[in-house]
This record gives sequence, C-alpha cells and structure tokens, in this order.
Amino acid sequence: MDKFTLLIETEDAKGLVYKVSKVLFEYGLNIDKNNEYVDSEENKFFMRTEISGEFNEAELLNDIKSILPADQSVRLKPQIAKDIVLLATKESHVLGDLLIRYVSGELNANIKAVISNHDHLRDLVEKFDIPYHFVDTKDLSREDHEQKVIEQVDIYNPEIIVLAKYMRILTPKFVGYYEGKVLNIHHSFLPAFIGANPYKQAYDRGVKIIGATAHYVTNDLDEGPIIYQDITRVDHTYSWQKMRDAGRNVEKVVLSNALNLLLEDRVLVYTNKTVIL
Amino acid sequence: MDKFTLLIETEDAKGLVYKVSKVLFEYGLNIDKNNEYVDSEENKFFMRTEISGEFNEAELLNDIKSILPADQSVRLKPQIAKDIVLLATKESHVLGDLLIRYVSGELNANIKAVISNHDHLRDLVEKFDIPYHFVDTKDLSREDHEQKVIEQVDIYNPEIIVLAKYMRILTPKFVGYYEGKVLNIHHSFLPAFIGANPYKQAYDRGVKIIGATAHYVTNDLDEGPIIYQDITRVDHTYSWQKMRDAGRNVEKVVLSNALNLLLEDRVLVYTNKTVIL
Amino acid sequence: MDKFTLLIETEDAKGLVYKVSKVLFEYGLNIDKNNEYVDSEENKFFMRTEISGEFNEAELLNDIKSILPADQSVRLKPQIAKDIVLLATKESHVLGDLLIRYVSGELNANIKAVISNHDHLRDLVEKFDIPYHFVDTKDLSREDHEQKVIEQVDIYNPEIIVLAKYMRILTPKFVGYYEGKVLNIHHSFLPAFIGANPYKQAYDRGVKIIGATAHYVTNDLDEGPIIYQDITRVDHTYSWQKMRDAGRNVEKVVLSNALNLLLEDRVLVYTNKTVIL
Amino acid sequence: MDKFTLLIETEDAKGLVYKVSKVLFEYGLNIDKNNEYVDSEENKFFMRTEISGEFNEAELLNDIKSILPADQSVRLKPQIAKDIVLLATKESHVLGDLLIRYVSGELNANIKAVISNHDHLRDLVEKFDIPYHFVDTKDLSREDHEQKVIEQVDIYNPEIIVLAKYMRILTPKFVGYYEGKVLNIHHSFLPAFIGANPYKQAYDRGVKIIGATAHYVTNDLDEGPIIYQDITRVDHTYSWQKMRDAGRNVEKVVLSNALNLLLEDRVLVYTNKTVIL
Repeated sequence: MDKFTLLIETEDAKGLVYKVSKVLFEYGLNIDKNNEYVDSEENKFFMRTEISGEFNEAELLNDIKSILPADQSVRLKPQIAKDIVLLATKESHVLGDLLIRYVSGELNANIKAVISNHDHLRDLVEKFDIPYHFVDTKDLSREDHEQKVIEQVDIYNPEIIVLAKYMRILTPKFVGYYEGKVLNIHHSFLPAFIGANPYKQAYDRGVKIIGATAHYVTNDLDEGPIIYQDITRVDHTYSWQKMRDAGRNVEKVVLSNALNLLLEDRVLVYTNKTVIL
Repeated sequence: MDKFTLLIETEDAKGLVYKVSKVLFEYGLNIDKNNEYVDSEENKFFMRTEISGEFNEAELLNDIKSILPADQSVRLKPQIAKDIVLLATKESHVLGDLLIRYVSGELNANIKAVISNHDHLRDLVEKFDIPYHFVDTKDLSREDHEQKVIEQVDIYNPEIIVLAKYMRILTPKFVGYYEGKVLNIHHSFLPAFIGANPYKQAYDRGVKIIGATAHYVTNDLDEGPIIYQDITRVDHTYSWQKMRDAGRNVEKVVLSNALNLLLEDRVLVYTNKTVIL
Repeated sequence: MDKFTLLIETEDAKGLVYKVSKVLFEYGLNIDKNNEYVDSEENKFFMRTEISGEFNEAELLNDIKSILPADQSVRLKPQIAKDIVLLATKESHVLGDLLIRYVSGELNANIKAVISNHDHLRDLVEKFDIPYHFVDTKDLSREDHEQKVIEQVDIYNPEIIVLAKYMRILTPKFVGYYEGKVLNIHHSFLPAFIGANPYKQAYDRGVKIIGATAHYVTNDLDEGPIIYQDITRVDHTYSWQKMRDAGRNVEKVVLSNALNLLLEDRVLVYTNKTVIL
Repeated sequence: MDKFTLLIETEDAKGLVYKVSKVLFEYGLNIDKNNEYVDSEENKFFMRTEISGEFNEAELLNDIKSILPADQSVRLKPQIAKDIVLLATKESHVLGDLLIRYVSGELNANIKAVISNHDHLRDLVEKFDIPYHFVDTKDLSREDHEQKVIEQVDIYNPEIIVLAKYMRILTPKFVGYYEGKVLNIHHSFLPAFIGANPYKQAYDRGVKIIGATAHYVTNDLDEGPIIYQDITRVDHTYSWQKMRDAGRNVEKVVLSNALNLLLEDRVLVYTNKTVIL
C-alpha cells in the first residue's frame, strides 16, 4: 500500500473540503491525517492530506485538479526519504549535528553530498561516508564559483538544499534556479539583527534573549519566508562569543526542526509567509 | 448569520470527513475552520468545525448523526459568551487575574458569581460588581457544605465551573453532578508532586523547573484529563515561598489559557486525555 | 534591625571585594546576599550587597567611597516599598494586571497614582482606591501637555514611573528630568519591529515567535537599556489581532518582572545595557 | 599565569567573604569571577571563585582552610580539560551528540573512552578515534559484569563518568566507588515518571509537556541531586514513540548543558540538592 501526501493551494471557495474528500472517498483511499487552513483575508485555501491506498497517481491528480478553482497548485508527494545536499563553509556545529542525526536515523532523508567553499570539513564529513566536494573560490568570480557549485549540486538532483552555515551570498541566478528548495539557518531572531555578525549586534544592544531563524532563501537577504524560530536566554555576563556559543545550540535545533518540516512536506508558502500544516 | 461550533466524536470509519462535509455543503454552510484527529490505536475520530449560515439546528444535528457510526457524540454549540461560576478560598492571585481579564474584555464569558468557603475575597470580587457568596463550613459536614455550594452554583446554571484555587476536596457527588464542567488549576507540573503543598515538595526535591497544570476534575484527585501546562525555571536560591510566588504567575497563565480553550469549545475528552482541536 | 541594599559601580581594581567586605565586617554587618560582576572589556566593577544591622548610613557610605577608585557610584537603598506612579492611555490589560498584583500583595510598591491622557481608565483605577488624574491634551502643545503631566507626577515624588502602555512620545525634557526612573513596556521583541504597530509588522513578516521588551526610557525611541524580555509562539493561523492578544499576555509578564527587578534595586545601567545582580 | 577555580562549602559565619578575599588579596591574585550563596535555613555557605596568578597551591589551600569554620570542604581545581568516560548501551542519539560536540570543540573535556554492555555503537565511536570497550554481560552476574566495567573505567581514571543512556542499574558498590562523579540523563521531567519507559507513562497520562533531567547518580534510583532540566511541548497527536523522539532532543540538550556545568566546576551538592554557582 502506497503512502502519499497531497498538497493543495488554491483560491478559497465553498465546499472545497467536501469536493476533495469526495474524490478521495471515491478512490477508496484512507485519509491518515488531514489539515486545512483558510486565509480569509487573502481568500486562499490550503490543504494537506496524508493518504494511503492503491491508485493511479496521474488520474487522482487530474481528478483533484478538475474540481478546484482555476488558480491552483496541487502536488502529490510520496512519503519516502528525500535526497538532500548540504552546503557548508568552515563551521562544523550545524553540519555535524545534521550528520549525527543522520546516522542515528533521526532524519528521513538521504544526504547525498556536502559541498563547501573550503576544505576544512572534509575529515568530519568523510567519517560518515558522505561525498565531500571542495569548490575552491580561488581565481573565480562569484558567478563562476557559484556556477561550479550548481553543477556539483545538480549531479545529485536534490529535492532540498540545506545551507548549513554556508557563508557565501547567493546570486539571484542560484536562488531562482533552486526556487523553493533552499533552506537557510540565520543566526538571529529575524528580523532583528539582519546582516553580518548578529551576535555582536545582539551583544552591543544588550538583549536578554537571542535566537535563530530557519527560512527559505529568496533574493532579499535574510528576508525569505520564515519556517521555524527558537530562542534562548542570555544575560549581562555573556560576552558576544559566549552568546555565539549559546546561539549555536539554538541554530542546530532550529535547522533540524525546519528540515524535518520540509521532509514531511508540511510547509506551504505564499505572500512571503509559510503555512505549516 | 449564526455562528456555531460542531463537535463530533465517534468510532473511526472511512469517508467521515467526506460525509460530514457533504451535509454541511448541502446546507449551504460556510466552514470557517475545520480540524480533525484520528486516534488510530483507539480507532476514534474527532472533528471540530466552525460553521456559519442560516439553518435549523435540530435538523442539521439529525442529519449529521444519521451518517455517523452508532457510537457517536455530536454537539452544536453557539459561539457566544458562556456563563461561568468561580469557586475560590482565600488566595486572590488566580481569582484576581481572571477578574481583571474579565473587565479588560479578554474572557469571552459571563462571570455570574464567585462562591467561597471563606469571606476573605468579598471586597475584591465586589469591586467588579460580581455577586459573592460566602458558604460557611461552620458546623457543617463536608457533604452538607458541598450541598449548599451546589445549590448556590445551580442558581446560575453555569456551563463551566472554575476552581480558582478552591482548597476543598470535592466529593464524588459533586464531581459526578457537574461531570465535564469543572476546571481546576493544580500548582504543580502534574503528575509530579501530587497532593498537598507541591511547592514544598518541589523545594525539597531540588528541581530546576516548576509548573502548573489545568485539568478537568474527576474523582481521582489530581488525576483528571490535562488541558494545559506550563513551567518556569527556578534555582537553588529559591526558598519554597519564592517558588510558590514564581509558580503563581504560571498558575494564572495556565488557568486562563485552559479556560479560553473551554470557552472556544476546543477540548474533547476520552480515555482520561484531552484532544485540543 | 535595618535592611539595606548597597549598590556599587566603579572602575575595576584589584582587591575591591576584599576592601568592601572589610568595611562591612568592621561595621559588624550581616551580608545577606552578595553579587559582583566585572566587565573586563570595559574594566568596570559592579557589586550589589544586601546588608542588615545597626549603623550610621552616612558614615558607612563615606567609608565605602573612600576605599573605591575615584570614578564611582555608591548607593545605599532601604529595603522598603517604593513609591511609584503609573502612566497609561486607553488600554487596560497591562495597567489592570499591575493593579491586581498590587492588591494581591505581589508588588512591593505603593502605587500613588495613575495619570492618563484619556479618561477611559478612571473606573478601573478608582475600583482600587487609587487617585486617577486625567490630563487632557486638548488645545495643548506636546510640551505644554507634558509639563502638566510632570507637575502631576511631581506631586507624588515617585522613585519609579511606569509607562503602562502610555502611547505618547516623550520629549527629551521629560526623559532628562526623570533620567533612570522611567520604565517602559514595548510590544515587540526589540530590536525587531521598532516603531508603530509592531504586531502588524510581525504579522506581515510571518514570524513564528513574538515578544515584548521592558526597557528604561532614553531619548532614542525604543533604544533604551533592555531590562527583561520574553516571547510566545504564534503560527500562520494568527491574524495580527490575535498576535496582539497573545502578545498582551507577554507584555504583562515582562513588565511586572522588570518592575520587580527595579523594586528590588537589582538593575544597574552602563553603556546602554543593564547588569542584573 | 595559572587559572584555578576555588570551591568552598562550609558552615556560615560572619565575615567569610572578607576573610577569603583577604587571603586572595594578600597572595596578589586576580579574582576573575566570584559567586557566593548562603542557605540561611541550613546555615551553609558556598563560594566559587575563579582566580589567576602565580602561587603555591598547597599553601593557598592551607591558608584558606585555616580561616574557615571547622566543618569545611575546600577544593582548588585547575581550569583545564577534564578526562571523562562515557557509558552507553544501544541508543546513539545522546552519545552521538556528545561525540559531535566533542569534535566541534564544544566540550572542554577529553573523552578517553566509551564503554558499553553491547557492541552496537562501536562503528559510531570509532569514527571519532575514541576507544570503544564492549563489556559483554554474557554468563556474568550483575556484580561480576559491573566489576569488569569498573576495571575498564579505572584504566582511564576519569574525573567524570557520563551515563549516556546506559540502561543498566548500578549497584551501591559502583555508586559508592565513584561517588559524586557519575552524571546520568533521565528521560523524564523528574520526579514525574520515575522508572521504566517514562514516555509511555507520559503518553498514558496525557501530559502536554515532556522533559528530561540530568542528575548525579546515587543509590536511590532516579532520586539523585538534579543538575539541569528542560522540557518541550507535546499534544494529543503524539504517539508515545513520537514523544520519545521529541524527548530525545531535550535529553541531548539537558545532558550537554549539565556536563558543561560539571566541566566548569560550577556544581556543589548538599542535602540531595545542587547549588549552581
């Protein structure tokens, strides 16, 4: 018996739950889990349904699409481990946390490769028998380096690209090419402390709480749709380095939580926000 | 246009969402919000739907009931302020917090009266023009006192009875008579520190976190279905009195959050647990 | 036996703990609690000591000052309830929470009066037998209105002025006149969402956590030293109004926690930050 | 210049801060950080001071001891990485988290070895070039197996023994032999759900929050002094397996936080409680 997740985004209309559930009922499918959300201000309807049964995917998709308003997005995703690729730079804490969760069976994903603009993390990654690709920036323009990264990523055709503290700014080309696939961890409680060295900024401002934000990458730096956030308390005894160390624990938790939401196909995006169903 | 909340609990079966949404669609109702939950271990189906439109309540209830499995509970609750009665003893912090939320318009309820086994809180309550009834325990057996409380409560026919630090143990008679209507706040993170003086117990055990628990009252003391819990951090510098003071802030937040869930008809109960939809 | 809190801020130097504790020992005083903090980057020393015993205050202050570096601030505060004045506008939730804590004995303070630029909250305040002063803005310039507020505040000579959702921008004159005495609650997790309508801003940005910040008021709007912050989780189902309602609960908790820190003389300020001892 | 942490526990008496700081001043030492705590109910004084300078350790210890009350414990610990040994069974999540923090430089410790009653985790541990010792229980009594574990541990003479989900009950002999050295992570918010399978217990009770507790091991199972606790929210959709998975993330954070407190010599124990300075 196959298990799929059905994701629907469309203009709202009366009877959508009825119409969709009617199709599923007529196919004899089990609804293992079902969530809807209506944004009545934007007149948008969102639905996420976990289904199981024997059926023809193309036919079901067709039948669902035919009963929805014209402005629609319908996806049917198999509930299997997704292929992912990680990009990193020099810091090991977030990357290492993902790797160890991976070998402990806590990530329903296949980490196909780690790609980096430095060679620092090779030893760590290769301990886990995962390919490590060092794409040197030497003598390359930003565009040319990025092109080489893209080529390397594309070999693995990943469904999700995780920026695990990848400290290069991405061009609109990269962002556009992988639209809706790139997950980033930002080391602040966005939108506070946008930009460089947020822990130093937080220290200078004397905040009592620091945080981290996982978001989709868009062309507006640090402005993409937020998926997950968390925080931790700090006090006056924290130097900015100690804030950074405390923040790293939050970064790990936030990134792995956000990644799990993506792996379970629970995140829908509209108007630069996420709906988590 | 009327607004109602439809609450369904039944044995699980294929097509329940379809069948219920079909009825709602045929009545021409708007589904403003909809949540389902299936406990596949217990084979139970739960659904909570906010609907609006013009319709005959009895007919709709009938039609819904007719398409569900035999083992069913279906309720249709108007989305209006519910009448509630508060029971208290001597402590003012939780009671006062409810009263001030009430006058600030934060509670969608009508506080009809406060009933107490002491006369201490009369001044506080009467500031808010709410009737205060002191039911003296003097010369009365537990049963006789409780009977007088019941008579006082029944005058107001409340939908919810809130024990706002009411420090009397209730008899099975009271609990049975008001089954599913009595909300209590327990000053510990249940099931830790069941029984008397939980803050002293917590102090003696040297815990680093204390909490509070809002639950329905059943005949098993401190064992009723849990609705909401929250915690706060403490450390070695806290005496048990300081723990109690810190805990009081948690108690207030937990009780008012739980009460709001009840006022919105979001809490369903089965096998001594709550489903919050 | 008198109880005092000794607060020292000075340039750091070797042996400060020894020298101060020597004076206290020679006076035969009990040290009930003692905390120090050294900011080694700024070379600053902070000390807060709760002492009890019989002694001449002026002499002790003199003796302490004589053994400290020249750049010093030494204060000796009696551990008694402080006089405070609250400023409010139209919103009752934060003000009401302070009032109910006050009557429940949770604030070690005397609320001398509530002053407002509107007459809306008179009924609420007068329930608690606290003077309410409505200072009308009608036909008055910002400066003239503020002058009348200052005159009203000064009648009570408060040690702390609490802005309990007072929605008027203060002039540098007010801020300078009451320097280090004015506590504000800002309805965002500063420095995120500075300025007007932070909940609307938070909604538009699609954040998953909202917060509140209590800070001293300085001339830089929303930029004063942060005393306390807290947060709560929100999700995509929250309209900005529901975010605001959720945020109000955080505002209350944050403001009363911050106020308690001030009432216990636990907050020291330097370089636009607070040290909480 | 050497850096040490001075730890003092003694009966309380007037002038202790003065007397200790006088000795340190006369030795010309820098006080980098200083904390005291007095439990006035138990009449106990605790002090933790980070000092730096050139001095004779034995002499300093002697001079400190000579000015304290007779009932005293004084320790002087160098601020260097401590040798530790980890005990595990089959679960990799907590162990893996410690290992990855170790290679990322987040633990100021030397992990000398991992010892297990199973051979399952060998591959994981050996990735990190750490010795793995499988002590088989086959044909051995509890006492004999434990004796072999002790012999293996003693080879490394560790300052701290971390039970990273070691699922064997320890005998009083083991506990007594390593008194004050054994750190355990318990997968519940103690004292709730003492004993076996706490996540199943939590599920059955329908709690809304689960937690984890790091504590010193004593002969009373799950009753040792608590060092650190944390929690996470769950709801009715969580099976007990999903509770366990959520709980594992808490376990990791709690254990590594507690271990860091031990590595920094910040934990003092009395009357089955911890003082964290």
